[in-house]
Amino acid sequence: MAPVGPHPAVADVRRAVREALADIRRDALVLAACSGGADSLALAAALAFVAPRMGLRAGLLTVDHQLQPGSAERARQVAAIAKQLGLHPAEVLTVTVGTAGGPEAAAREARYAALAEAADRLQAAAVLLGHTRDDQAETVLLGLARGSGVRSLSGMAAEAGRYRRPLLDLPRSTTVRACRAQGLTPWDDPHNEDLRYTRVRVRRNVLPVLEQELGPGVAEALARTARMAREDADALDQWTEKAYQNCALSDIGGSVTLAVPELEKLPDAVRRRVLRRAAIAAGAPSGALSATHVLAVDRLVTRWRGQKAVDLPGGLSAVRRYGTLILAISPIA
Amino acid sequence: MAPVGPHPAVADVRRAVREALADIRRDALVLAACSGGADSLALAAALAFVAPRMGLRAGLLTVDHQLQPGSAERARQVAAIAKQLGLHPAEVLTVTVGTAGGPEAAAREARYAALAEAADRLQAAAVLLGHTRDDQAETVLLGLARGSGVRSLSGMAAEAGRYRRPLLDLPRSTTVRACRAQGLTPWDDPHNEDLRYTRVRVRRNVLPVLEQELGPGVAEALARTARMAREDADALDQWTEKAYQNCALSDIGGSVTLAVPELEKLPDAVRRRVLRRAAIAAGAPSGALSATHVLAVDRLVTRWRGQKAVDLPGGLSAVRRYGTLILAISPIA
Repeated sequence: MAPVGPHPAVADVRRAVREALADIRRDALVLAACSGGADSLALAAALAFVAPRMGLRAGLLTVDHQLQPGSAERARQVAAIAKQLGLHPAEVLTVTVGTAGGPEAAAREARYAALAEAADRLQAAAVLLGHTRDDQAETVLLGLARGSGVRSLSGMAAEAGRYRRPLLDLPRSTTVRACRAQGLTPWDDPHNEDLRYTRVRVRRNVLPVLEQELGPGVAEALARTARMAREDADALDQWTEKAYQNCALSDIGGSVTLAVPELEKLPDAVRRRVLRRAAIAAGAPSGALSATHVLAVDRLVTRWRGQKAVDLPGGLSAVRRYGTLILAISPIA
Repeated sequence: MAPVGPHPAVADVRRAVREALADIRRDALVLAACSGGADSLALAAALAFVAPRMGLRAGLLTVDHQLQPGSAERARQVAAIAKQLGLHPAEVLTVTVGTAGGPEAAAREARYAALAEAADRLQAAAVLLGHTRDDQAETVLLGLARGSGVRSLSGMAAEAGRYRRPLLDLPRSTTVRACRAQGLTPWDDPHNEDLRYTRVRVRRNVLPVLEQELGPGVAEALARTARMAREDADALDQWTEKAYQNCALSDIGGSVTLAVPELEKLPDAVRRRVLRRAAIAAGAPSGALSATHVLAVDRLVTRWRGQKAVDLPGGLSAVRRYGTLILAISPIA
């Protein structure tokens, strides 16, 4: 009899996990963050299979957000499945979700705080997250709707600090099939069907229309866009930092002076990033600093005809004096 | 009685045209390319109003693609309206549309060739095109579906060679209102309703869903994304060209040699562009050179473990030899 390999979907998830862990030192602990949904359940099962074969230890964290009736019981069930899969430790992290920034943002903040605390305490080398290519496509569309440039199109990172997202190139359907092939029953979070959430509307109503009208490769194209946009944004940030160091004549808390002739040598994309960087260095709160603010400062450089000072958030203003641009707390009028 | 100003939509279109023509020398001829649709009709009317007040001459070109019954008669009507508006010359350019690249691409090619010929013959300083913010949003979505990076997200340029698109920041609804306010009856091209065209499906089926699910600012956000993506792509191209000059040890027709240590210093986004640039310099046809090809060459730099040559389109291959990367026509095996 020919040897029977794993189901193709199971093999795909395992391969993705193996590749994501290639650089982890032997004997280190790797944790899967698992909600019990298909994505993170397939991830946890793959980790349980792959880790011992790579000389790694594997555990699981599941967060009880205490937002739905029965959430504690469900978290216990996820931990029980983890133990059956051979994951150890398998911890339930119970959190209290606040309200700041809306329900999605508050739950996310509480969840990541708990994951970080547990990862530190357990001295984990990495925490794996189950986001798939479909999640990435949704994130890109949400960023696109903000219209705030390549950084907002760059989606989620495959690797960020202790977090890794091995499934970012796999479709959600693969994780669903992998669970089914392994006899794992995923939990369907009712929040994933709640159309009050923008992300749920993107998933249910927007992406299917895009696939229908533009072709079935849209999620993949969006994920590819994210990867390229992230690389582009990183490269431009690197250039911006170098250019900022070159343009900044002085940068003392609350006051930055830039050399206009140096700014004029930069391409638009870099000069505007340098101006944004300078405004933040001078004390402007980054969240309040809009593209419109930055463009107004930019006109002091590129369309100079004696304009007055440009007001910026945080009580700052930008003025041009001879060949310099000064961003500082506005003098009392 | 208070003086009566123009309708706000008419004022918006005129202001946009005025700003787009600010740098044109006096007495120069500016032509509006006009299909008779609302966008380009509002554009033509605004040009007719604005140009004499700026010391410019204004004319109109309309293209008869000979693709629909009555197209010649319609083109004559557009030229007649142009004369009433005071545009001179008002020419009908009759073209024969081929088939290469599909019906949309073939019509576009024939149209731009005719516009370029007429602009040269009439010694026009600029040709204005009526593309609006909605056209730009559609173009960005079409680029997004290709998933080929910031350049494909950068939409149409506000200015490219002799062409200018003054209406790129205005919604289509403004041009419709401007026509109505001036008693102009736009022609509705039946092609604009033909759902066999991807662009029409994006307009009719995709953008309304995006607006409904993500909020009414989506077209604006997409247009903003286009502008920023274009600036980013331009800056990265500039960096790439400089880095290519720095990495290329030799660049003789059909063979390019790059210094690996210099490539290794570059961020991913720039290094991959340099490799693409090198493959094209060595003779790879750019249309056939995919991101997958470039990534395979990139692994010769960043994940070197003695791989064999990477095959590239155009009969090229890339090999690593000591500290160099050689892209050249493959030797006969």
